[in-house]
Amino acid sequence: MAVSGASGYAGGEVLRLLTTHPDVEIGAVTAHSSAGERLGAHQPHLRSLADRVIEPTTTATLAGHDVVVLALPHGASAAVAAELGDDTLVLDCGADHRLTDADAWTAFYGTPHAGTWPYGMPELVLDHGERRQRDLLAHVRRVAVPGCNVTAVTLGIQPGIAAGVVEATDLVAVLAVGYSGAGKAAKTHLLASEGLGAAVPYAVGGTHRHIPEIEQNLRAVGAAEVSVSFTPTLVPMARGILATTTARLAPGADAAAVRSAWEDTYAGEPFVQVLPEGQWPTTAATVGANTALVQVAVDERAGRVVTVTALDNLVKGTAGAAVQSMNLALGLPETTGLPVEGVAP
Amino acid sequence: MAVSGASGYAGGEVLRLLTTHPDVEIGAVTAHSSAGERLGAHQPHLRSLADRVIEPTTTATLAGHDVVVLALPHGASAAVAAELGDDTLVLDCGADHRLTDADAWTAFYGTPHAGTWPYGMPELVLDHGERRQRDLLAHVRRVAVPGCNVTAVTLGIQPGIAAGVVEATDLVAVLAVGYSGAGKAAKTHLLASEGLGAAVPYAVGGTHRHIPEIEQNLRAVGAAEVSVSFTPTLVPMARGILATTTARLAPGADAAAVRSAWEDTYAGEPFVQVLPEGQWPTTAATVGANTALVQVAVDERAGRVVTVTALDNLVKGTAGAAVQSMNLALGLPETTGLPVEGVAP
Amino acid sequence: MAVSGASGYAGGEVLRLLTTHPDVEIGAVTAHSSAGERLGAHQPHLRSLADRVIEPTTTATLAGHDVVVLALPHGASAAVAAELGDDTLVLDCGADHRLTDADAWTAFYGTPHAGTWPYGMPELVLDHGERRQRDLLAHVRRVAVPGCNVTAVTLGIQPGIAAGVVEATDLVAVLAVGYSGAGKAAKTHLLASEGLGAAVPYAVGGTHRHIPEIEQNLRAVGAAEVSVSFTPTLVPMARGILATTTARLAPGADAAAVRSAWEDTYAGEPFVQVLPEGQWPTTAATVGANTALVQVAVDERAGRVVTVTALDNLVKGTAGAAVQSMNLALGLPETTGLPVEGVAP
Amino acid sequence: MAVSGASGYAGGEVLRLLTTHPDVEIGAVTAHSSAGERLGAHQPHLRSLADRVIEPTTTATLAGHDVVVLALPHGASAAVAAELGDDTLVLDCGADHRLTDADAWTAFYGTPHAGTWPYGMPELVLDHGERRQRDLLAHVRRVAVPGCNVTAVTLGIQPGIAAGVVEATDLVAVLAVGYSGAGKAAKTHLLASEGLGAAVPYAVGGTHRHIPEIEQNLRAVGAAEVSVSFTPTLVPMARGILATTTARLAPGADAAAVRSAWEDTYAGEPFVQVLPEGQWPTTAATVGANTALVQVAVDERAGRVVTVTALDNLVKGTAGAAVQSMNLALGLPETTGLPVEGVAP
Repeated sequence: MAVSGASGYAGGEVLRLLTTHPDVEIGAVTAHSSAGERLGAHQPHLRSLADRVIEPTTTATLAGHDVVVLALPHGASAAVAAELGDDTLVLDCGADHRLTDADAWTAFYGTPHAGTWPYGMPELVLDHGERRQRDLLAHVRRVAVPGCNVTAVTLGIQPGIAAGVVEATDLVAVLAVGYSGAGKAAKTHLLASEGLGAAVPYAVGGTHRHIPEIEQNLRAVGAAEVSVSFTPTLVPMARGILATTTARLAPGADAAAVRSAWEDTYAGEPFVQVLPEGQWPTTAATVGANTALVQVAVDERAGRVVTVTALDNLVKGTAGAAVQSMNLALGLPETTGLPVEGVAP
Repeated sequence: MAVSGASGYAGGEVLRLLTTHPDVEIGAVTAHSSAGERLGAHQPHLRSLADRVIEPTTTATLAGHDVVVLALPHGASAAVAAELGDDTLVLDCGADHRLTDADAWTAFYGTPHAGTWPYGMPELVLDHGERRQRDLLAHVRRVAVPGCNVTAVTLGIQPGIAAGVVEATDLVAVLAVGYSGAGKAAKTHLLASEGLGAAVPYAVGGTHRHIPEIEQNLRAVGAAEVSVSFTPTLVPMARGILATTTARLAPGADAAAVRSAWEDTYAGEPFVQVLPEGQWPTTAATVGANTALVQVAVDERAGRVVTVTALDNLVKGTAGAAVQSMNLALGLPETTGLPVEGVAP
Repeated sequence: MAVSGASGYAGGEVLRLLTTHPDVEIGAVTAHSSAGERLGAHQPHLRSLADRVIEPTTTATLAGHDVVVLALPHGASAAVAAELGDDTLVLDCGADHRLTDADAWTAFYGTPHAGTWPYGMPELVLDHGERRQRDLLAHVRRVAVPGCNVTAVTLGIQPGIAAGVVEATDLVAVLAVGYSGAGKAAKTHLLASEGLGAAVPYAVGGTHRHIPEIEQNLRAVGAAEVSVSFTPTLVPMARGILATTTARLAPGADAAAVRSAWEDTYAGEPFVQVLPEGQWPTTAATVGANTALVQVAVDERAGRVVTVTALDNLVKGTAGAAVQSMNLALGLPETTGLPVEGVAP
Repeated sequence: MAVSGASGYAGGEVLRLLTTHPDVEIGAVTAHSSAGERLGAHQPHLRSLADRVIEPTTTATLAGHDVVVLALPHGASAAVAAELGDDTLVLDCGADHRLTDADAWTAFYGTPHAGTWPYGMPELVLDHGERRQRDLLAHVRRVAVPGCNVTAVTLGIQPGIAAGVVEATDLVAVLAVGYSGAGKAAKTHLLASEGLGAAVPYAVGGTHRHIPEIEQNLRAVGAAEVSVSFTPTLVPMARGILATTTARLAPGADAAAVRSAWEDTYAGEPFVQVLPEGQWPTTAATVGANTALVQVAVDERAGRVVTVTALDNLVKGTAGAAVQSMNLALGLPETTGLPVEGVAP
């Protein structure tokens, strides 16, 4: 298989996971500005691939692979995918093909909509639990990999919505996000000197592009109407998302119903775990693993359910979701090649 | 003046501010387990006080000072204060005397209530703006210094409540908090090895002891009823609080009214600044300064106002508030000896 | 196999590696004060073992396993090992059995020497290259796992000593060390509030207990006489060691000879890599991997060779070395179950 | 006075110190690409200057000030200074005018030498203690502010060289350096995502431009010959330098002579402090302060003296040195406006 965007964080993480995947052979690794250089110069942690030479991202270098991962800037994947055959499995880590609503796409991204692909979040509950999204991924040849913040919020709150124990309107999500989520392009506000010792919000006030994707997911779960206040904050860590999401407790619901909703939803899921009552997730426990840790509590005083999700934005938030979806699309066991143990401390 | 708890973080920060305060002479520095040792062994950054010997915290060592700062564990200050004369200005950095509601105290702290002291948050708006809390601090001889998280949330949201442009019920506050806020006692979950690279929540689900203090403040501002979902998360920084607080937009209010409410409330405040529209606060800009930076936006889609406050938990959150209140109580200019410039990057 | 010290960092990392080792079944996980609790409460990142109950560390719980890893405080392993049969493979992550010189042991540790076990650093060059330490590890039933700082310094400088291109006297090593190297016991100076934003040395001036182990290694390589100035410094990262070691260039040696010495020494080593000329190692590239990255340069002006080694103190520095040695002792392929790809960024 | 480079880290720190300097009025604040913007948009921590508009750095904007600070890229200050009158005090935070040896300049910087200015390190011991550099700074009108790494190494080791208790050849210095030392220009390897959790060396092997400046300083102290192996490493902190410097103990010298040399040298210095024996410096204790903390020990086993210096690269390493030199040049008390208390934790 081929991986484009191989010198960036998402592409690098896909490659890291593939090095230990038993059913995959890594073919072309491609990128744009770093083409012609050793991969080891850009990804010194990928020792077994260090001497691979990065090829340019073109139809020619990507063609001929059974599977192609696109880890490109938003807006770049549609043109590339169009050149790849319909029997090639294409996994897009960018946003281009996630939204079903072309208007929402254009409102948040400002460009024409590129079309909708099957959505690569296998654990997404559909229609209050009738099915899960994994049921729709068998044999597909196009996958839109979800956004990392979206995954954290969706996995955190969907059990309550599916079970009807929380309201889907007036959700509030605040996220602590590590810097790799902002990508590898050099920008002043992303410098270590700026980020060390600092917490700072971005895209506040309903402007973040992940909002329509969250809404779309929760409607798929079964919510008639969704509204979410969404605020991400950068904190001094390289990886990780800690998403705190609160929702109003639905009339008639109580703490026991909430607990059951969360535990039942994830009882059989290999990569999402509801922690024992009272133990709250830390992002450290998920580093490098395709794991989302979830906890929930009812704040009777405030009338709200609080759920916290920890995951690694580059694994369960991006590259792990891509590999998990690939496994499903190829008919492999879903968990193949995906670590569940985090690297901590 | 005397400072107890001098080997801890709050006491150390009070001392740091006092070293450059023109109207104060530092007398006894006291502590418990470190009594008899050089202050420099515990606070190596306080160079001008390094050779001071820490005295034990007793009535004898504290007596005879015009001003006494208590930076003691919760529950320890009432007994000490009782022994100090009524004409001694006593500033309590602990929680013991903050709450007016004895039942709320006992519900969250589990001990009998020690009585209520004048509250050391000069910027607190009272009765929709009739007065501010500073008007009540002249010549007092007892001050309850506010909690650091409480200060961040209160300063962030009170303009909207005072002006009636947001609802005070169903507030949601999520905070990124630095480790010095957890104190200097050695605990496994506060180790650097655990905290570096991790974000982790604590006291989730309505259990945090700062909740009744927030509610009390917002009722003082003018809210008939208050409810707040409050979730603090530890992130890898030594100092700083970034509080993201959201409130439902009040019926009839709009973005212009919100902006005016925030800007008007803090127009004359020396230590609280509403940033220019679109610039969001970073905790880094407040390190070492008695500064709270505030921003606000209206999320029309979600129907919520989002306000973010950044401050240094040890300065504006604790020691700076103590000194500011001391200045008022002693009839000094309120800003005496208090830095407004942060140490960044 | 059994792992003691399972609630600590070294024991936890051994367990993490074993979860994906194809030839090992994890039996008893034992500890002292946490016995009786869920492993998941102490090691939340070890998801597949989360529901294991920690047993007490006793002869009874450890006996009956083919392989036992001891990750205990210094001084505790001899007594435990004595109770385990001679056909049990015992790997001691502590220092007790590393030194051959009983006097050096007593001088630095202050207790009687517990005897010397085969040394678990397979890449150690013996007698100027006649053999490597791995040749001595086949079928052994006791292994002393090396110290993490020792591994970083030894791997960095041994090529020059083996080839005679640097002098082994007057070495100077300064290390930047992450906090997990200091263990999980709660101590004030190891708090996140103290460590974030700070660099601080410890055990300066020839007092560090790792010094005699370094000297012993370099004598094994072939140095007639060794002296090393060794200074570790704690820096704000959870994992990792960056060891900068300098040695005087030997008379007659030049840059080409130095380069050859380093490249030739590690040409066939699976876990130690000399980077391409001009690329310097970062600890980030080794996180979670059993990898040491090495670079070397000649400073003509100063007459010194400078070599820098990056490794993960918990993997190549401890747990990975244990597993690698176990593989050799059991006759398994040396690289079995050991990751070479780091988790970065 | 005027400050150029006002949107960068050095210029920003000069401004921070000047805001509380009693004898200075801040005139023009200038920069290049950010000219025309609010200072608050680039330096949000400088609250009292937030509404200043950044002017372009030109002769016209700088002229007419009694004092001008140049915080410009290397190579840019000579041309600007030439346009400023001889009675203007010009302090250059860049390297252009530090070296007396034009050949050394050209060898390390590759451009023609711009001439030598009086060197702004007041504590530099001259001629084994006959004088200090401060004696040469009265009434000067040009000052070359030292490099930050140079200051840390020089202050650490000069007592031994002045007293003849260490050898000046074969020095080895390894530094842990915070990211603000690398400046504010956006570069991939300086991103927070790259730096968090990582230690990485740079300019290894005798290539760092600070080397000839160190040598020049130590010759001024009295060394006949100097050689130094110098390796800086970036570690995850925003500010701070921890310099570990070792030197061979001179024949006949012992621990008592070493201790005396260090303590005597700095007995009267306001900004350099030798810590009590056994207490090692942490960079955290110097943040924001014009303080260098120094400790020394003799490693008998290795035959080397080890000295560690902690300072804030932006204060004692740059901006504080500039203000301290300015005070001397203007005939003000040397300590005016310079904080000695660090901001910790």
